[in-house]
Amino acid sequence: MKKYIFIIIALISLKGYSQKSDSTILSEIYKNALTSYESYNCLKMLCDSAKGRMVGTRESERAISILENQIKKTAVDTIFYQDYFAPAWYRKSEDAAIILPGKKKINLNVATLGLSVSTPAKGTEAELLEVMSLNELDSLGEEKIKGKIVFFNRPMDHSFINTFESYRDAFDQRIYGPDKAAEYGAVGVIVRSLAINNDDYPRTGVTIFDEETNKIPALSVSTNDAEKLSKLNASNLDLKLWIHTDIETKDSIDTRNLIAEIRGTKHPDKIILVGAHIDSWFNTEGAHDDGAGCIQVTDVLRIFKELQLKTNHTIRLVLFMDEEINQSGAKEYAKYVKQEGKEHIIAIEADRGGFSPIGFTIDANDSITDIISNLTKKMDNYGIYTIIRGFSGVDINKLKEYNVPLIGLLNNNQRYFDYQHAESDTFDKVNRREMQLGTASIAGLVYLIDKYWIK
Amino acid sequence: MKKYIFIIIALISLKGYSQKSDSTILSEIYKNALTSYESYNCLKMLCDSAKGRMVGTRESERAISILENQIKKTAVDTIFYQDYFAPAWYRKSEDAAIILPGKKKINLNVATLGLSVSTPAKGTEAELLEVMSLNELDSLGEEKIKGKIVFFNRPMDHSFINTFESYRDAFDQRIYGPDKAAEYGAVGVIVRSLAINNDDYPRTGVTIFDEETNKIPALSVSTNDAEKLSKLNASNLDLKLWIHTDIETKDSIDTRNLIAEIRGTKHPDKIILVGAHIDSWFNTEGAHDDGAGCIQVTDVLRIFKELQLKTNHTIRLVLFMDEEINQSGAKEYAKYVKQEGKEHIIAIEADRGGFSPIGFTIDANDSITDIISNLTKKMDNYGIYTIIRGFSGVDINKLKEYNVPLIGLLNNNQRYFDYQHAESDTFDKVNRREMQLGTASIAGLVYLIDKYWIK
Repeated sequence: MKKYIFIIIALISLKGYSQKSDSTILSEIYKNALTSYESYNCLKMLCDSAKGRMVGTRESERAISILENQIKKTAVDTIFYQDYFAPAWYRKSEDAAIILPGKKKINLNVATLGLSVSTPAKGTEAELLEVMSLNELDSLGEEKIKGKIVFFNRPMDHSFINTFESYRDAFDQRIYGPDKAAEYGAVGVIVRSLAINNDDYPRTGVTIFDEETNKIPALSVSTNDAEKLSKLNASNLDLKLWIHTDIETKDSIDTRNLIAEIRGTKHPDKIILVGAHIDSWFNTEGAHDDGAGCIQVTDVLRIFKELQLKTNHTIRLVLFMDEEINQSGAKEYAKYVKQEGKEHIIAIEADRGGFSPIGFTIDANDSITDIISNLTKKMDNYGIYTIIRGFSGVDINKLKEYNVPLIGLLNNNQRYFDYQHAESDTFDKVNRREMQLGTASIAGLVYLIDKYWIK
Repeated sequence: MKKYIFIIIALISLKGYSQKSDSTILSEIYKNALTSYESYNCLKMLCDSAKGRMVGTRESERAISILENQIKKTAVDTIFYQDYFAPAWYRKSEDAAIILPGKKKINLNVATLGLSVSTPAKGTEAELLEVMSLNELDSLGEEKIKGKIVFFNRPMDHSFINTFESYRDAFDQRIYGPDKAAEYGAVGVIVRSLAINNDDYPRTGVTIFDEETNKIPALSVSTNDAEKLSKLNASNLDLKLWIHTDIETKDSIDTRNLIAEIRGTKHPDKIILVGAHIDSWFNTEGAHDDGAGCIQVTDVLRIFKELQLKTNHTIRLVLFMDEEINQSGAKEYAKYVKQEGKEHIIAIEADRGGFSPIGFTIDANDSITDIISNLTKKMDNYGIYTIIRGFSGVDINKLKEYNVPLIGLLNNNQRYFDYQHAESDTFDKVNRREMQLGTASIAGLVYLIDKYWIK
């Protein structure tokens, strides 16, 4: 088993760093981040010019070009694309309406779920079956489900402090609900949006069908409209639902990850990875998810260069494509790591929105977790007070098979599910200072790990 | 000297509380707050119907009525007004413009500073003198200042983590700048808004004139316009500034504080005060300042009643009038405390916006500070991790002369100075969950202090 040793005595200064204390350097990092507007302006450009930047689209290429230009403002040592081919899924249009007796129609705010299929051109009209869980489907059985449109309507539980727990508590409906409904013969699925607030914005997100399943169209409906639909359904009207989705899939499109590096002075072949994902859902600027993350990890390189912090290890920025649907970028990057053979001493991902940082998630063994927890104590003046062990990011997770310790930036997430995967995830929802504090927290952690990592 | 003793062993259950553990009760408090929408809806009403609720205005009466109705939804034991008379200051209108050679006018976004005086009806036109500090005024002296409009343009320092430090670092310009400029014979003052972001919203706020000073009109200008004004001024055009303010003052208006209580079971004559201020500036809904605070402390009573938490001490809600200008409500309440003679074991104020709570400020002696810090450790699952000793609230500060220990709710304040005293401090800027976490944190602290306070 590999053995990692950190030296965490602040007095020891390794080659490549000046004699400044850690607290001085951390202070410089945070001050630099808080007084800089460059990355925030870049986020605005990304949101304005590259909305709906799904893998393989023109918008995704525009996003790459904006981010590449931003990286080039910093004198990095390397910048390159990792080109590859990937399958793609596009939503061309979608509609849904309640059909009341007498053919009166009430339109609903809906968004197609990722990997859904198309309805027939005229849409699908059927009776509605409202359920609160996947278990309820099982207990109802095929007879009561067949030929219907299943409506999953269990709200996110508002009582959790951590909104990601509310999300995990409810997302089986979106992720596995359509597949299960299809197994019982449903003709379509409509899912209450995974939103922690009540509004008119439907939330998309991926749904997963088993290869054997006869796929069916699946949409999400805004929380307000889910309430409306449920009330009308309960009033025992002879109500039907009409849904329409138009999907295009491609077996293979040309796309790429964007990679840049600042070479390490002592261990140039050992990598500290900072990453985020370029793509967003079709319906959104993706300001928090994950525009902010891209901007943050890009800005980490600028901060190191501006403060003339020479690192022992190479800092590699990886902007992944296609996190939202197939993680093709992450898979492709993992392949590359194997070919390249360079050790990744750590991988840090930023994909939980541009909110005030509160700490990190760590997915690593006990000793590394302890050591990183201890290092982060140097940042407790900056609101970094929480370490949670566990899953640390969809894209870097593919590096787990190489035993890379994984870290995710952890933020105050009270507002995250107000916007995630929705049209409302716009630039104005990102506060510059909150985002920049996250940037500084990643940069600070990179600095500490780079300095104290001895293997 | 009075001696306070807390018992902080969770096993001891005092009269009035059930056998539930503290962690269970705290969890119930937070869950209740997070799943409740009542107070958020009340904040919306307050913002929609009582914008610009300055002391003595119809809007302030509407605010009282909205809050009173909200309190009455909870079966409190007492609700009453504390009526009193106070001086009042009102801004009727304001304008300012850059006057370029050839009389070309460029209008500026300005707000009159509280306690400013009127200009002559046609306004005041004069040369501009831009300075960055009060010291700079001293070094320039009367000769260079006399007859001019002084423009204080030092920005808030963005590099502080705590935005209140940025505020304190810059606010001498607004608070003492006009008085000093007047002493040197300036005919008016325009101050760069105390905003941590760049926008078009001017920020008002109080300015203080010495009684001996010949008062002059004073305005704030939006950060964007301050930049514009500075650039034009630097380009050496023969630029003048025109300002116009129209102020009305009243020696004595009829107004009031709003007070409500849940009586203690064991020590009904000992008070735990929770307070916030009703009034807002003329130009704003005052959603964060201090609508959210009023709503939070009001909701604390609802939570205690709903969870059937009987307290040993009386919880008294005090909604103060006139925090922004003369603190007449706080002064009047302090007088009442003296007459009434009931001991206040603690006073807690909520006046730092409806953002995610991170802890408390404590203004008390060492031993009480230690004990309260220890009690708050029971809330560290809820993001309560910061205790700062020092100033804890403008209104409760008047109780300091009676040696009341003072506590202020401390929030993540990154966004506070995006909105404070500006038209942009609107309902939509308050996130329900963030505000409710603050409510729960106050309620949790009240619960712990009430339970463990033995004197």
